[in-house]
Amino acid sequence: MNRISKIVFIGAGNVATNLAIALHSKGLNIVQIVSRTINSAKELALKVDADFTDDLSGISQNADLYIFSVTDAALIELSTKISLPGKVVVHTAGTLEMEVLKSISNNYGVFYPLQTFSKAEIIDFEEIPICIESNHKEIESFLINLANLISKNVHLINSDQRKILHVSAVFACNFSSYMYLIAHDILEENGLEFDLIKPLIIRTASKIKTQEPEDAITGPSRRNDTEIINNHLNYLKTNPDYFEIYKLLSNNIAKHFHDNKK
Amino acid sequence: MNRISKIVFIGAGNVATNLAIALHSKGLNIVQIVSRTINSAKELALKVDADFTDDLSGISQNADLYIFSVTDAALIELSTKISLPGKVVVHTAGTLEMEVLKSISNNYGVFYPLQTFSKAEIIDFEEIPICIESNHKEIESFLINLANLISKNVHLINSDQRKILHVSAVFACNFSSYMYLIAHDILEENGLEFDLIKPLIIRTASKIKTQEPEDAITGPSRRNDTEIINNHLNYLKTNPDYFEIYKLLSNNIAKHFHDNKK
Repeated sequence: MNRISKIVFIGAGNVATNLAIALHSKGLNIVQIVSRTINSAKELALKVDADFTDDLSGISQNADLYIFSVTDAALIELSTKISLPGKVVVHTAGTLEMEVLKSISNNYGVFYPLQTFSKAEIIDFEEIPICIESNHKEIESFLINLANLISKNVHLINSDQRKILHVSAVFACNFSSYMYLIAHDILEENGLEFDLIKPLIIRTASKIKTQEPEDAITGPSRRNDTEIINNHLNYLKTNPDYFEIYKLLSNNIAKHFHDNKK
Repeated sequence: MNRISKIVFIGAGNVATNLAIALHSKGLNIVQIVSRTINSAKELALKVDADFTDDLSGISQNADLYIFSVTDAALIELSTKISLPGKVVVHTAGTLEMEVLKSISNNYGVFYPLQTFSKAEIIDFEEIPICIESNHKEIESFLINLANLISKNVHLINSDQRKILHVSAVFACNFSSYMYLIAHDILEENGLEFDLIKPLIIRTASKIKTQEPEDAITGPSRRNDTEIINNHLNYLKTNPDYFEIYKLLSNNIAKHFHDNKK
């Protein structure tokens, strides 16, 4: 447990790909990539000099740490099929409790990097918060040391806190991304370049570095400018989904700032 | 019309403040700030070496360009009270048609900087798209030249296009800001630091530089991971507003990626 020697990844998606490459770049030995999609396994394995398999019965027994980076449903299913007694097993999920790993090994934990990852763009982990949890103090220290190798932003976070972080992350990341997608869609439909609002998106995000979100919000619903809001809703009438989203979010912003409920 | 000499600002809010300071920094002469809130007028006037007033009858007649940077409702009201025959008058609004200025002067136009501004943080205009429109070719050129002094991202945009840009901007900026606010709120309520998700927010926004929004979206609803979505909704039950927002956005993302409607 004192030396981190050999790591197996189960999963070869966005998180696994970025994490495996980050650990590999710090000299850690990724021995195997396991994925039900053999091409994904191979693709990642080539990047981190590892073996690969799509066969659960072929999982290497010759490693110290097994990192499960798959969907929650897949992990629940895997936990009934895989047994790795004595090994350290962790998952990288935001919401799933760590006890799901109990049936795989008694030495389990969580290694949750709080970031959005894409295979297409491998990113540096230095600033990424890594949330650690384990059922053993010793494994906790082991995981913290491992995380410290790639990030200077490592935290002990329990399962309840991790779930709250994940819910928040869905709003801050997935839903804001979806807002970009809607903007892109509206612009494209009208022959306007998405490039035109890129400076706005970047600036909006960077405001959080210096201002509280509450102070940073601008726009018609912040000012309760019903003239503009109705004009925009009228424009969106032809797209009932976007209409409904605009209306709900607009109402909530106006309520937040103008109903004196805060 | 060939030389830009003297400018009056009507309004002293976030847009007026940033724009007046940007123009002043390029050597333009801001002669007066007019605002119904005398303290706001004074505050901005001091920053750009201008006079100030809260009295509409005291508007300087001694300028060439009058920039109206107030709410749409205020501008509609002002248009019935102010007359500046022969002067160039523009507004900085996203959605309002430029003809609202017709009763103030025959020489009217739009000078719309597509960005989110705060008085608290004065920003550089160099990358900011500035959308120009006018009823006269000559004024159009005059406004383009003026915009070119502060930005290298100047565009001729008609009223219809500008409205579309503004609707898109509400999604991309105001609504994404509101997502940050919700995340902040949830974290704060649980004693967790907003700092933990700042790297995620910055990264999510910067993805648009290299990826289409559709490719950049990750998370449970992107994967249609109903286990996590239901878990999060269950957690949000105590806050009906956030519950409803999560559900609506989640459903729309899942629909976008999994209903094969695209």
